Amino acid sequence: METATLLCSCDDQPGIVAALTHFVAEYRGNIIDLDQHTDSREKKFFMRLVWDIGDSALSRDELPSAMGMVAKKFVGMKWRLSFDSPLSRVAVMASKAPHCLADLLLRHQMGELPCEMALVLANHGNLADLSRHFKIPFHCVPMDGMDGERAEAQQMRLLRENRIELVVLARYMRILGPDFVAGWEGRIINIHHSFLPAFVGARPYHQALARGVKIIGATAHYVTADLDQGPIIAQDIAPVSHRDEVEDLIRKGRDVERKVLGTAVRLHLERRVIVSGNRTIVF
Amino acid sequence: METATLLCSCDDQPGIVAALTHFVAEYRGNIIDLDQHTDSREKKFFMRLVWDIGDSALSRDELPSAMGMVAKKFVGMKWRLSFDSPLSRVAVMASKAPHCLADLLLRHQMGELPCEMALVLANHGNLADLSRHFKIPFHCVPMDGMDGERAEAQQMRLLRENRIELVVLARYMRILGPDFVAGWEGRIINIHHSFLPAFVGARPYHQALARGVKIIGATAHYVTADLDQGPIIAQDIAPVSHRDEVEDLIRKGRDVERKVLGTAVRLHLERRVIVSGNRTIVF
Amino acid sequence: METATLLCSCDDQPGIVAALTHFVAEYRGNIIDLDQHTDSREKKFFMRLVWDIGDSALSRDELPSAMGMVAKKFVGMKWRLSFDSPLSRVAVMASKAPHCLADLLLRHQMGELPCEMALVLANHGNLADLSRHFKIPFHCVPMDGMDGERAEAQQMRLLRENRIELVVLARYMRILGPDFVAGWEGRIINIHHSFLPAFVGARPYHQALARGVKIIGATAHYVTADLDQGPIIAQDIAPVSHRDEVEDLIRKGRDVERKVLGTAVRLHLERRVIVSGNRTIVF
Amino acid sequence: METATLLCSCDDQPGIVAALTHFVAEYRGNIIDLDQHTDSREKKFFMRLVWDIGDSALSRDELPSAMGMVAKKFVGMKWRLSFDSPLSRVAVMASKAPHCLADLLLRHQMGELPCEMALVLANHGNLADLSRHFKIPFHCVPMDGMDGERAEAQQMRLLRENRIELVVLARYMRILGPDFVAGWEGRIINIHHSFLPAFVGARPYHQALARGVKIIGATAHYVTADLDQGPIIAQDIAPVSHRDEVEDLIRKGRDVERKVLGTAVRLHLERRVIVSGNRTIVF
Repeated sequence: METATLLCSCDDQPGIVAALTHFVAEYRGNIIDLDQHTDSREKKFFMRLVWDIGDSALSRDELPSAMGMVAKKFVGMKWRLSFDSPLSRVAVMASKAPHCLADLLLRHQMGELPCEMALVLANHGNLADLSRHFKIPFHCVPMDGMDGERAEAQQMRLLRENRIELVVLARYMRILGPDFVAGWEGRIINIHHSFLPAFVGARPYHQALARGVKIIGATAHYVTADLDQGPIIAQDIAPVSHRDEVEDLIRKGRDVERKVLGTAVRLHLERRVIVSGNRTIVF
Repeated sequence: METATLLCSCDDQPGIVAALTHFVAEYRGNIIDLDQHTDSREKKFFMRLVWDIGDSALSRDELPSAMGMVAKKFVGMKWRLSFDSPLSRVAVMASKAPHCLADLLLRHQMGELPCEMALVLANHGNLADLSRHFKIPFHCVPMDGMDGERAEAQQMRLLRENRIELVVLARYMRILGPDFVAGWEGRIINIHHSFLPAFVGARPYHQALARGVKIIGATAHYVTADLDQGPIIAQDIAPVSHRDEVEDLIRKGRDVERKVLGTAVRLHLERRVIVSGNRTIVF
Repeated sequence: METATLLCSCDDQPGIVAALTHFVAEYRGNIIDLDQHTDSREKKFFMRLVWDIGDSALSRDELPSAMGMVAKKFVGMKWRLSFDSPLSRVAVMASKAPHCLADLLLRHQMGELPCEMALVLANHGNLADLSRHFKIPFHCVPMDGMDGERAEAQQMRLLRENRIELVVLARYMRILGPDFVAGWEGRIINIHHSFLPAFVGARPYHQALARGVKIIGATAHYVTADLDQGPIIAQDIAPVSHRDEVEDLIRKGRDVERKVLGTAVRLHLERRVIVSGNRTIVF
Repeated sequence: METATLLCSCDDQPGIVAALTHFVAEYRGNIIDLDQHTDSREKKFFMRLVWDIGDSALSRDELPSAMGMVAKKFVGMKWRLSFDSPLSRVAVMASKAPHCLADLLLRHQMGELPCEMALVLANHGNLADLSRHFKIPFHCVPMDGMDGERAEAQQMRLLRENRIELVVLARYMRILGPDFVAGWEGRIINIHHSFLPAFVGARPYHQALARGVKIIGATAHYVTADLDQGPIIAQDIAPVSHRDEVEDLIRKGRDVERKVLGTAVRLHLERRVIVSGNRTIVF
């Protein structure tokens, strides 16, 4: 089956669903999945629409401009139309810890992540072997003793050369500069190893131990200019007890981090996430 | 706001969403919530549609027949249209244990359950006080030493006299006869104190202890002629350990039972559940 | 069975478990439950010991001084010995919301909470009926328009007259003054309706919605002079989505609050909690 | 730190804890962790005791016979004494699916599993690369078209040659013969991809879909002669909905399987599990 996926949002107004589903039906598309949400507080409308374009009267090339004509009928409509192919090109950025990277590459190998894994970009060399095992190109841009800005410029050049659409920070331990964040706005997913907004910043498991919490968590979010403040895509938790030392929190946390990051990346790649202000709609 | 809620299902075919949303829009309804599901394996279509009828060109009396005209365009469409009022009339059936009954009455009092609590129907007298506290009429039809069929006939008469639309079994410890089940088909919700299909039948916590499971659960389901085999609406679990005796499982289980039953009743009353074969679609 | 329960803590040093279990055995006690924890980072030792004193060579009156002799052998040992009876006397403080109070009273009625429910103390009158249904004395000390200090003095007098050992804040919406907190230090349990340390202070569900979290939570903790900073006893969470308005968070949160508060109160009454700095050991 | 770990069980009788902790203390051991459990229904006693033997008056060679002398004082005491080294030798048996094997090897690499990964034993060749990446010897004993008994004899020979103490079935899709099971009794851990006792046997995710459950699970258990009936070590679950096809259940299930199997293997290797009848005590 060949499908088109539309994500759109606008101010709430009557007739949007009718107009869009009519648009699909009149060009012989068959709706496979429709999910919509009306934020009655902010009076905003959001929708995800997936339809079969196997018998479509419009080709892939014609669909966007036709869709544009429909969108113009509604005040302030923002929309994005995607197709099954070509797949999004993804880069994973990592430091030394292998667990999130290994997990993403395994999920990709098992078909959970509809993307092309184009690049692993690290600031240490120890994950080269792992990337090689999964046959994903590995690049190392060391940061220690290097001018940070120059290193970041090199990273951005690599991402651009590889036409990367989504950057996944898999326990990448450096803060990205504003140019980097601006260059991939809404397209950088980070895993923070705490239940945000608790324990922002460095060493959250140590903070959690000091506070004596009974549950730890992890948060996958889009990266914005403000550290650990971007829109949250997914969160999960694990129970802990007084018996757990920092090492135990780290071990238990790894399981949560992997699951939450894998989930968030899949949701993004399946075009299920719309950012609205500092929140996400996850269909 | 005044709303209409449509639940419908039929064989999958093109144009259903477009036709129904067009129907809403052309009579000046504004869609508040739309959720649909296509079961691609069984080629079936399901939808829940909620719209504001404050400015509707059709009155509540006219809407059903107009909707019937739209439904006729699609092969085998089954549908049900409901309005905010009048509220569904609910009866809770209980035996001796107070926890599920108390929970439902408290949820109702706090506005979680959009219904009229019309009746508590018990086979023991000890819950009369609790019902009185919440100002819900209480009837006791004792079963011990009574002819079972005659007692059940009396129960059904009470339910009919009170025009009961939904029957909730809140740890009611008797098995309903086939006439009773047939009379409220798809409108009797039971809480079974295990994670079905594990531990069907009597004393599931004792069975769980004997098997040495590490998690217990509870299941809310529609009652059918086959014991504990009806369509499942909601399930939840609680972790247990070797330290838990049967009394601990029962205590932990009570928390799960209450939550699962309360959730299932709310979902039903909000018209979020469609039964399809032995499964449920829960929007 | 008649039992004694010992909670003790001290600097870690060799031979503590041997000395204490030997003490139990030589006076013909039989250990039913023993749980110990060594905090290797802070080099502290904690233990909970429960034994059958049915055949004990020492009476209840003799046991404490005998235990005191053992404790003296170890540097800095703090200990508390309790028996099955008399039960702890508990007061529940509430405002208008009934759900946590109703839950505690129901749990008490069902035998989950080994205590004497001596008093419900509210600053509004609407929960009088509920308390009466469960046959628990109800007192209202209104706060609005009243001198706060005088009102609090009246509350403390009532608690003292009723010889209250544990105060449970069941969504009590006022901040307790320093005298009150000092008077029941380590014996006031509060439920905060967020996953602490996230969303300290007022209206945490509104804060959660604004931040766009995907999970909400509740935290039961001992009250200290610093608002929402005391040692955490229990926490739990519920998943939420973009569909959940503030009202939905509040509804989902109520289920979590009830469960977490009920659990924390039970753990305290079963003598399972030791406070160490700002953390708790929960056996 | 150098430690000894004792697991023991016997009929409940007075003085066991005192005798064992006295034994540790008198030979200058320092208790690090003690957990005990009394099954009051079956009148059985279980204990796990870990102590520092750095300053021990008894050497590793002397400890077992000294411990044997203590054990003789108690009727029917079964016990096992282990030391930090040498590490247990583990074999992982797998078929084609990589996720559980990859997970175990990654956990081992990150230091979560205190064992020597001695062998991967598969009945297909496709996981050779993965094993090689983690530098674990890989052997393939193909089963298709081979005499089952002969193949199993070859497997057992390999396990014996490699002095394997624990066999982990990481989604190994063949049923082991009675000789195999008897040879590693209580030392074979399997992951079953359902919430046992629900959905015993083949294709549990298909069974789960057909029954319309709202939660799926996975179960790690010791293998016995009866299929999927052995003592359960760990279980966990994931919520599912009507939207999940079999492929989604399989995908969600993989995450649960990995976590549950990894947890069970760690618990076993840390000497935290005692089997009692068909149940486990997990300290």
